[in-house]
Amino acid sequence: MDHPPVTQTFRDELSNLFGDRASFSLVLREQHSHGEGYSFQGMPDAVVFAETADDVADLVKLCRRHGVPVVPFGAGSSLEGHVAAVRGGVSLNMMRMNRILDVSVEALDCRVEAGVTREQLNAHLRTQGLFFSVDPGADATIGGMAATRASGTNAVRYGTIRENVLGLTVVTPSGVIIRTGGRARKSSAGLDLTRLYVGSEGTLGVITEVQVRLQGLPEAVLVATCQFDTFENAVATVTTALQSGLRLARIELLDEVQMRGCIGYSKLEGFAAKPTLFMEFHGSPAGVREDGAAMQKLALEFNGRHFRHAERPEERTLLWKARHNCYHATKWLCPGKDNMGTDACVPLSEFAACITETKQDVRDSGLIAPLVGHVGDGNFHLGIMHDRNDPDETARAEALAVRVAERAIRYGGTCTGEHGIGLHKRRFMEAEHGAALDVMRAIKQALDPDNIMNPGKMLPDRID
Amino acid sequence: MDHPPVTQTFRDELSNLFGDRASFSLVLREQHSHGEGYSFQGMPDAVVFAETADDVADLVKLCRRHGVPVVPFGAGSSLEGHVAAVRGGVSLNMMRMNRILDVSVEALDCRVEAGVTREQLNAHLRTQGLFFSVDPGADATIGGMAATRASGTNAVRYGTIRENVLGLTVVTPSGVIIRTGGRARKSSAGLDLTRLYVGSEGTLGVITEVQVRLQGLPEAVLVATCQFDTFENAVATVTTALQSGLRLARIELLDEVQMRGCIGYSKLEGFAAKPTLFMEFHGSPAGVREDGAAMQKLALEFNGRHFRHAERPEERTLLWKARHNCYHATKWLCPGKDNMGTDACVPLSEFAACITETKQDVRDSGLIAPLVGHVGDGNFHLGIMHDRNDPDETARAEALAVRVAERAIRYGGTCTGEHGIGLHKRRFMEAEHGAALDVMRAIKQALDPDNIMNPGKMLPDRID
Repeated sequence: MDHPPVTQTFRDELSNLFGDRASFSLVLREQHSHGEGYSFQGMPDAVVFAETADDVADLVKLCRRHGVPVVPFGAGSSLEGHVAAVRGGVSLNMMRMNRILDVSVEALDCRVEAGVTREQLNAHLRTQGLFFSVDPGADATIGGMAATRASGTNAVRYGTIRENVLGLTVVTPSGVIIRTGGRARKSSAGLDLTRLYVGSEGTLGVITEVQVRLQGLPEAVLVATCQFDTFENAVATVTTALQSGLRLARIELLDEVQMRGCIGYSKLEGFAAKPTLFMEFHGSPAGVREDGAAMQKLALEFNGRHFRHAERPEERTLLWKARHNCYHATKWLCPGKDNMGTDACVPLSEFAACITETKQDVRDSGLIAPLVGHVGDGNFHLGIMHDRNDPDETARAEALAVRVAERAIRYGGTCTGEHGIGLHKRRFMEAEHGAALDVMRAIKQALDPDNIMNPGKMLPDRID
Repeated sequence: MDHPPVTQTFRDELSNLFGDRASFSLVLREQHSHGEGYSFQGMPDAVVFAETADDVADLVKLCRRHGVPVVPFGAGSSLEGHVAAVRGGVSLNMMRMNRILDVSVEALDCRVEAGVTREQLNAHLRTQGLFFSVDPGADATIGGMAATRASGTNAVRYGTIRENVLGLTVVTPSGVIIRTGGRARKSSAGLDLTRLYVGSEGTLGVITEVQVRLQGLPEAVLVATCQFDTFENAVATVTTALQSGLRLARIELLDEVQMRGCIGYSKLEGFAAKPTLFMEFHGSPAGVREDGAAMQKLALEFNGRHFRHAERPEERTLLWKARHNCYHATKWLCPGKDNMGTDACVPLSEFAACITETKQDVRDSGLIAPLVGHVGDGNFHLGIMHDRNDPDETARAEALAVRVAERAIRYGGTCTGEHGIGLHKRRFMEAEHGAALDVMRAIKQALDPDNIMNPGKMLPDRID
């Protein structure tokens, strides 16, 4: 999309405000022009490194005066083009706002600046017997995770980031610093601005601080894996377990292709390239043993074999690290190819049908597309491997991704369970939300009338 | 507040649209002029009984054309004046929209019309091994509970209604019927309108259907009670239990005054009028036994005595019914007096200090004000008994209630954990939200520019 370059006046004012924390270097701008999703690029005119909420407010006020876009940038791990400066403007790097401001063991909460990453936070918490549960694959920033409504493997037990954010500090598109929510576990006091900003993808303001809930490390943890001869049996085991109320902290399904990648990339030993469940149980020592045994019994009914407990902590770490590295394992599987991720999430009642149709779709496409899912939430990803320089293959990959998203919506689900809309999924917003889209647009218009906050993202352009 | 009466033209159009489902009878209007909170009254000009979302849309469009307020009315159990037609207009009775539309055992969800009450839903679900967890004291409608962001005794384990609503059907202030959310457990697709409407108190539209999450009945349930000689020891037991990660499904604290009321009103046997914990554990048979034993051991450290298990289902029902009837027990304690409820919710780290100061405040006030709390969430209520015809006593009750709310905000909490703002708590919105209030106002203005949806509620009048 064409857009006017920023003026020299703007550049001067930016330099006056931020000194060498405002950069116009091509290298830096290129680094800030995209996230992990390669195909979404947009070169910013400048990069600014914020250190305080006041910095952000100053920048937003300046940009508003000049009608210049502001695009927040965290760890750059977005898969959907959220951070591409598609209309130019300033890429606002938040990574220097990385202080952990407050940890309360008593309240099980803490406040962090938006640029703190999840691994940084968990390293800080470990000695205090606490952890932050939301764990997308990447070592994303907490601010970025809040902005995209991220989740991960722990959501089935501890919720997504939506349930784990108590409050926010936000710089509004007018440059006003507001605080939403508070530290109470619940509140009925007024409109839930916290939840409005969670998932707003930088389109309504910039999140500068996040008050998050923490969890106590469970008394006992049991990790187990189980392999299946057929994909259908693995899925049936999951849905039956969930319906029977089995208390799962994590339950992840990797299909035979994904397992092949993980065995190779993450050096997993003793596994076959077959559909596999990775499971974790949290509770009292006797409780997790009961839960694990119940799950083993259930899996056996569906011919689940090699039900193994990962006894040693190193073994558990290896397994979950392999799970988090699925994205890279998939790329390892197809060297030189690109990975187009899908992110469907459907009601559990529709999961088996949806995933079976999806597997057939993959076969029909002739592409390699491993499947991995947070199946406890009905959320699964394909990593559609293709060569981006091959138009035919790219078109087939796109077509497969579109079918997956449309099917999810048809089944009462969503085109994105945790990656967000960004650029790539805007085309599904109409189908998923219908007339509710106008309400979203009215809110965007009311809060950001000049459309400076991450323009071109999330809401599809109106076709009048 | 003065407001012009509706015109004859409006009355005629209303009758044309709704026939005898539009009523102007004084008796009906009086019934719809208030909820449970006596001091908040506002007589509507008419009462309309909706049967479909289209009815609601027709009504809203008519009212918008005439600039007439629409005030949604469910079970009428609001304590904060939400349903008082303070600017006249139409009270929209939703109780005929009481169909349970769909129950999915597989997906653990169902869709209900807004007028379905929580007890109606749970009676319907019982034979299917499921339950809906959100349980405010009253048999409120699901729509009303969504509108006020209600919770209850189960929130510590299963979350408030915020976490248990998947999607909504809403009639916007323009009379458009939209659907928010979906049936997927999680989604990152666009602005979270579901959470925006949850807790919006009818100010942004009318909720006509709610898609809710259901829970499987737990395999094993253990209910226990424990009495303490001092209030401080009871509180210390709770906070220690929560910090140690004990898995509680419910934990309720009743002080000695509240227990005196419950023993008398609900005929509880074998209890002294002492600070008491009501607890429930959900899990596997061995798991709940372990959890119960751990709690008993912990309570003993704080001189908790008479740790009793309620073995029989009737006994459990009696206990939880007594808990839900605290409001009535308090009125029973002080015949002829009125009950002014408070609803503070604070971070768990501040709970002991906050509640100790509050107890001192009650003593200083010279009023009878039993305390009962969803202590797992840091939420507690006083029932401040007073004679509304005694100006001095009412003023002292008000002053006590104000101190409780202001203290909660000072401690990083909220003036209302679950009752909502309505009319009564608008005065605390500025202190609690500061500049964020302007964002709420901008959203209200954008979505309801004519201010017809429950005007005068939630947002304080702007003092320019």
